[in-house]
Amino acid sequence: MTVTDRQEIGEPVPPPWPAVEAAVATALAEDLGLAGDVTTSALLDTERAGRCVVRFRTEGVLAGTWAVEAVCGRFDLLVAWRAWDGDVVDSAGVAGEVEGTLADLLTAERTALNFLTHLSGVATLTRRFVDTLEELGSPMRVRDTRKTLPGLRALEKAAVRAGGGVNHRMGLFDSILVKDNHLAALKAAGMGVLDAVELARTVWPGLPVEVEADTLDQAVDAAEAGAGLVLVDNMSPTEVTAVVEALDGRAPVEISGGVNLENIAAYAGCGADFVAIGALTHSAPAVDIGFDLV
Amino acid sequence: MTVTDRQEIGEPVPPPWPAVEAAVATALAEDLGLAGDVTTSALLDTERAGRCVVRFRTEGVLAGTWAVEAVCGRFDLLVAWRAWDGDVVDSAGVAGEVEGTLADLLTAERTALNFLTHLSGVATLTRRFVDTLEELGSPMRVRDTRKTLPGLRALEKAAVRAGGGVNHRMGLFDSILVKDNHLAALKAAGMGVLDAVELARTVWPGLPVEVEADTLDQAVDAAEAGAGLVLVDNMSPTEVTAVVEALDGRAPVEISGGVNLENIAAYAGCGADFVAIGALTHSAPAVDIGFDLV
Amino acid sequence: MTVTDRQEIGEPVPPPWPAVEAAVATALAEDLGLAGDVTTSALLDTERAGRCVVRFRTEGVLAGTWAVEAVCGRFDLLVAWRAWDGDVVDSAGVAGEVEGTLADLLTAERTALNFLTHLSGVATLTRRFVDTLEELGSPMRVRDTRKTLPGLRALEKAAVRAGGGVNHRMGLFDSILVKDNHLAALKAAGMGVLDAVELARTVWPGLPVEVEADTLDQAVDAAEAGAGLVLVDNMSPTEVTAVVEALDGRAPVEISGGVNLENIAAYAGCGADFVAIGALTHSAPAVDIGFDLV
Amino acid sequence: MTVTDRQEIGEPVPPPWPAVEAAVATALAEDLGLAGDVTTSALLDTERAGRCVVRFRTEGVLAGTWAVEAVCGRFDLLVAWRAWDGDVVDSAGVAGEVEGTLADLLTAERTALNFLTHLSGVATLTRRFVDTLEELGSPMRVRDTRKTLPGLRALEKAAVRAGGGVNHRMGLFDSILVKDNHLAALKAAGMGVLDAVELARTVWPGLPVEVEADTLDQAVDAAEAGAGLVLVDNMSPTEVTAVVEALDGRAPVEISGGVNLENIAAYAGCGADFVAIGALTHSAPAVDIGFDLV
Amino acid sequence: MTVTDRQEIGEPVPPPWPAVEAAVATALAEDLGLAGDVTTSALLDTERAGRCVVRFRTEGVLAGTWAVEAVCGRFDLLVAWRAWDGDVVDSAGVAGEVEGTLADLLTAERTALNFLTHLSGVATLTRRFVDTLEELGSPMRVRDTRKTLPGLRALEKAAVRAGGGVNHRMGLFDSILVKDNHLAALKAAGMGVLDAVELARTVWPGLPVEVEADTLDQAVDAAEAGAGLVLVDNMSPTEVTAVVEALDGRAPVEISGGVNLENIAAYAGCGADFVAIGALTHSAPAVDIGFDLV
Amino acid sequence: MTVTDRQEIGEPVPPPWPAVEAAVATALAEDLGLAGDVTTSALLDTERAGRCVVRFRTEGVLAGTWAVEAVCGRFDLLVAWRAWDGDVVDSAGVAGEVEGTLADLLTAERTALNFLTHLSGVATLTRRFVDTLEELGSPMRVRDTRKTLPGLRALEKAAVRAGGGVNHRMGLFDSILVKDNHLAALKAAGMGVLDAVELARTVWPGLPVEVEADTLDQAVDAAEAGAGLVLVDNMSPTEVTAVVEALDGRAPVEISGGVNLENIAAYAGCGADFVAIGALTHSAPAVDIGFDLV
Repeated sequence: MTVTDRQEIGEPVPPPWPAVEAAVATALAEDLGLAGDVTTSALLDTERAGRCVVRFRTEGVLAGTWAVEAVCGRFDLLVAWRAWDGDVVDSAGVAGEVEGTLADLLTAERTALNFLTHLSGVATLTRRFVDTLEELGSPMRVRDTRKTLPGLRALEKAAVRAGGGVNHRMGLFDSILVKDNHLAALKAAGMGVLDAVELARTVWPGLPVEVEADTLDQAVDAAEAGAGLVLVDNMSPTEVTAVVEALDGRAPVEISGGVNLENIAAYAGCGADFVAIGALTHSAPAVDIGFDLV
Repeated sequence: MTVTDRQEIGEPVPPPWPAVEAAVATALAEDLGLAGDVTTSALLDTERAGRCVVRFRTEGVLAGTWAVEAVCGRFDLLVAWRAWDGDVVDSAGVAGEVEGTLADLLTAERTALNFLTHLSGVATLTRRFVDTLEELGSPMRVRDTRKTLPGLRALEKAAVRAGGGVNHRMGLFDSILVKDNHLAALKAAGMGVLDAVELARTVWPGLPVEVEADTLDQAVDAAEAGAGLVLVDNMSPTEVTAVVEALDGRAPVEISGGVNLENIAAYAGCGADFVAIGALTHSAPAVDIGFDLV
Repeated sequence: MTVTDRQEIGEPVPPPWPAVEAAVATALAEDLGLAGDVTTSALLDTERAGRCVVRFRTEGVLAGTWAVEAVCGRFDLLVAWRAWDGDVVDSAGVAGEVEGTLADLLTAERTALNFLTHLSGVATLTRRFVDTLEELGSPMRVRDTRKTLPGLRALEKAAVRAGGGVNHRMGLFDSILVKDNHLAALKAAGMGVLDAVELARTVWPGLPVEVEADTLDQAVDAAEAGAGLVLVDNMSPTEVTAVVEALDGRAPVEISGGVNLENIAAYAGCGADFVAIGALTHSAPAVDIGFDLV
Repeated sequence: MTVTDRQEIGEPVPPPWPAVEAAVATALAEDLGLAGDVTTSALLDTERAGRCVVRFRTEGVLAGTWAVEAVCGRFDLLVAWRAWDGDVVDSAGVAGEVEGTLADLLTAERTALNFLTHLSGVATLTRRFVDTLEELGSPMRVRDTRKTLPGLRALEKAAVRAGGGVNHRMGLFDSILVKDNHLAALKAAGMGVLDAVELARTVWPGLPVEVEADTLDQAVDAAEAGAGLVLVDNMSPTEVTAVVEALDGRAPVEISGGVNLENIAAYAGCGADFVAIGALTHSAPAVDIGFDLV
Repeated sequence: MTVTDRQEIGEPVPPPWPAVEAAVATALAEDLGLAGDVTTSALLDTERAGRCVVRFRTEGVLAGTWAVEAVCGRFDLLVAWRAWDGDVVDSAGVAGEVEGTLADLLTAERTALNFLTHLSGVATLTRRFVDTLEELGSPMRVRDTRKTLPGLRALEKAAVRAGGGVNHRMGLFDSILVKDNHLAALKAAGMGVLDAVELARTVWPGLPVEVEADTLDQAVDAAEAGAGLVLVDNMSPTEVTAVVEALDGRAPVEISGGVNLENIAAYAGCGADFVAIGALTHSAPAVDIGFDLV
Repeated sequence: MTVTDRQEIGEPVPPPWPAVEAAVATALAEDLGLAGDVTTSALLDTERAGRCVVRFRTEGVLAGTWAVEAVCGRFDLLVAWRAWDGDVVDSAGVAGEVEGTLADLLTAERTALNFLTHLSGVATLTRRFVDTLEELGSPMRVRDTRKTLPGLRALEKAAVRAGGGVNHRMGLFDSILVKDNHLAALKAAGMGVLDAVELARTVWPGLPVEVEADTLDQAVDAAEAGAGLVLVDNMSPTEVTAVVEALDGRAPVEISGGVNLENIAAYAGCGADFVAIGALTHSAPAVDIGFDLV
């Protein structure tokens, strides 16, 4: 296992190393091709030593140190971190150092940074939502979705955790989520949300059952059917508040659809337990981070 | 080959299908896990038919139709497009239709959309830069970088093409790009940019040789050394103009570093041939697109 | 997707096809090697047609039809089933027919049967437990464990479903299960089961939290801590009954450890919700099934 | 190569490490998924050290130490064995020790044990047959078949060797085995067993040629055709004895079909060279082995 | 299975399709990279139809039609053969036709030909040895070795069969071959060739046992030890003849080392059963074959 | 990265390690199968130490040391080189030493040598062309083609570099090469070579544009169209000379088709820049190299 273990209880949990290793192998293969780093191989003495710092060019939340380590581990580059996943690094701040041969540093640089800048971008955007809610005194927690970039789900969800968010289901496989389309199809067979929840629980008794609701009535039905979570979709703050009050703790409530940094304050006091933000993983701008040779 | 071929001369070129197939296989594996779509498998009759339209919720440039086809091809879902890669689709516009069983539609939906919304996001951001330059009457072309998301390079670069941009090198392997760090290392051996270009051309005579320059003098040296492209890094419009004038056509010039939609107008008239925008691939917000059952 | 879809609501859910395809590819590669079926290639005219029935030599529960289809799909062999996953097939009964070339039939036979006999074995053993409980009028449901054969987990868990059982967690990733070793480690930090449940729920709010208990007190503590399931480990029927009574519905109870066909009757009336049987997947004898040429 | 080498001449031969590594990678991926060991990551300090013994809960023959090492090698866990493949370990006996971090121990435990309990199960069942024959003074050797669990053939066949058995062919590729179906097909072309053996030997002169016989006459024909082994299928002890006598050493004889621990004594004195037992690999119950923290 | 089945009894046996598919996937990936066929994608209308003939530019033995089919199968190109594996095709002769889109034809051409020209090269060189022996009236058969090009063993060995040769062992796994180094190591333990053969047969009773001999005495020892084949290494024709006479049919004899088209006539009458020619697979010149558009 | 780094500026560039590792993994899998090295495992004490020298049996140019290291790295074998890629090793000369256990040495030997003998063969043939041109005082450089053996392109192209040659494009992806078939297709649309070059440059502005010419006129057209290289196909020395004179330095010229060691002298003085030799990679005879135990 090339990924170092430092996290203690309460620290952000990294993705399992097979997922990291697979993503890193793919990324290196696409950058190296059949000829490798043609510039470096033509111009540099391969025994020349090199050292760089990992410098943030704009402030952000660090995430993906394990991916950098996995990249560097393929090149005999050693990494020493000064900050950890979840730490805020100031603009011009140094997150760590990498050393080995100069040739390896230059060859590995872009792949390592492509992971780090994207994952730190996800963590940074997550933190902005988390901080906004905290400043407002809201206990609502920030959650991701399945709207992740193909091939990077495990890594992006770990970055969300580093940013202070929590994960919703990892995939189609680990949670029942009954949506309107499922209910519409069941209706044709004379079945409703109660039947849906029971059916799901019968087939997959180990799994959480969640129901998406577009209206207050559906939300109430879902809670009465015993859903473990009610996902209220595209509701106004007023509507969400009504749902929370109507459910009265019978099921946790997650707000979904259309929430962003501009309007989240309006939802902060609704009393919902979670807010789902697809943008955390599908639209997070990269943090500007570089390898500066020293 | 599950990816349909429709493009004619002048149409955006899709990525090669092995790259598409590999990305799709990875994406489906991470969404399906060991249990598959537990909700759909518990609730739906697998023989029920379904049909949906692929609807843009906000205007954008379509890209990644081949990825949707590759996803659908794994499920016996048929896709009929009404628009093609590179077409602008209006808000509420329909890019195509998908049909098959309802269960397959619901299971494939998110994976297909994760490709389509991201790749269309890349194409849309590219098109904004391209349109801005076009409106300004600038012949400068928009290029991507190696700052791509791990595992998606071939797909994102195809999306840049769909947006009207052109690709810079695909990886470390297909173009020599001499940067400051290479030159610094060579300097220790008493060598300069001329030696670097010659050395590179000797080892890899088939490949383009490009040189990154931070100053006017370096740019001139690079052109005199016979570089096929001079990449001017982090220069002001005035500095770029000076480089273009000094080179006087001896080498194409590419602007790199810090150009965005806010400041690109200032660079539009500098006379450079290309402008490199890392954000096209590392920070493009997703386009909001959905599968609407019909 | 080579796996046919026939299941309706309430039918056993097959594993997702990527898992099936991967297992089949591995199995065929290990049987064919570099030379293929040397006997058939030397002796048979490859155009000769062949047809066989899939005959049970002893009574059993059919499971794994999707694996047979995936094997046959690699050989242009067509399969027509007369029974479905979960059906009991009598001794000498025919589960389906396969046709194509004789050479392909002989080459594919063993790989197809290795899947079918093992998976039907898992389903058959599961059904024996299920039937035993049903005859006793017990509502307790039969569950599998993570004690599966390496590489076959998704397939074996589908076979358990075909046998009438339900699945416990698929892996380490989809459910919190706090065991004695975790609690012992936490104790050193002055933490107990309540802290464990809270900590787990904070880090992974979407996931079920289950606690393993060796004693009545621990079981009560677990339920009070809000565990979604209490796994009672290696308890006698009397002890289990005491736990069920003490919990009084605050959490479902799953019996684990040492239950087999000989002693399950003693546990049937304890009031527990689930009984976990590792043997379903790690020790199920194969059902004797053959391809009989017709 | 993470698998240690200890075996000397005469010790059981482990499977080649690529086969072991592939099986271990698959097994870990299916247990870790995208989120990893959620319980351990939430609850344990990752730097806490741990140590356990590998304890047999019931007596059995140890097999698969190399698989445990391959699993542990992925986690920086060190293994020290006190017994080796092929050794009998008593109930409560300790086969070895594993140490590293407690978190890694708990995460690796089940995957390591799933290999060890199954492979030791195969070895243990094999040894029961071997011991039975030995007690009866029979020189007949116990052989496996191609009825192995998909993806585990190389590992199970190594476990058979650890149990004192010997391997029949590894796959379709390394031995000619002419069965009744081949002969029936050839008959249509006017060819018999002699033609079959000659044809096979002409195409694949390097490979052993074996013939399956259902009757005494076929067995004699096979031997006369020069078969290197005659596999007598589903014969009674009397019939086998008649075959052995009729062949009179012209070809070794292997008994196949329906032999089990209950009836093997009746076959022990028939004079056959080998007895094939499919159950060794398709129906061996797991040995109960655990990791006990110390 | 994309590879067509035409071979009848006595025709050359193709490699199993998983081996062919794996080699084809690797070959296409290395030719297409991330950008695909940049020339064709820029210049050709993708709907334009195309057709070509597969024309031999110099006479040769056709081999590898299944590889061409596997390549074409990835592109919706249809292949119709006019000749089959093992047929001699004259200079300017046409082996088959391929049709589909012109773009696909141009993209697939080189990969398909790289397989066909190499494999036909292997078959052609094999046939030259086979024909030479046949003309001399020698019954000695031509065999390949393990000196194959990495990744192509199954395919090259099939090409040897197409050329009229027969295969020696496929790898280290399917035949015991005791060499001088093994014997030297055993000697230290006081063991000789007889012990070696017995030991090998005990551990792997199903496998052929072959012994390499450098001298007449060793050859005799090997035969007496019961070797199933004696490989005489680097002997003169006179020495080989002496071995054959001394063994007097007790074991087949294979000549190995230093035999080529220039000196094979001298070995033709020695009475050996096989001659091993490493050059068949490691040094066969490619046959010149092209795709000619029609 | 198991491949050692020794090369300095000017030394032959090895292929990127992912390509080497992939080829080595495939090669070992095909030699080891499911049973591994059955001879060595049956006969040798696995702890016995061994050492060998890598001895050239005929003079040649060493290439592929990195492949040998990658093979040996899988077995805990240590390699110490006495020569480097690109060095000429005399007949009987020693290129390096390998040490570890005798069992590992014997198991790894053939796979390591299959790489080394083929790649050194490619380098040796390349060097013969290079030396011939050098002796004639010709500055023309020797280039490879895409006529490589499937799966080995990156490795063979590195061997060409070790032989003193230079690489032409790595695949279809890194250079535009307009051939007669492309031009013929464009002609139907009223387009000529000038349009082709412009079109290609528009779509792929970063890539070299090369044009294949069959006649003097086409060559002139190509140069005038701005091609970066003119590939003259199947021309006589007189015709090539005429092309070089007509182009007068406007584009480099590469001779392609039908050049071999017999006729290259006639082309040496034509003034062309490159000569392409497909045989370097598709027909290079292996160098005879062995592992001699010491």
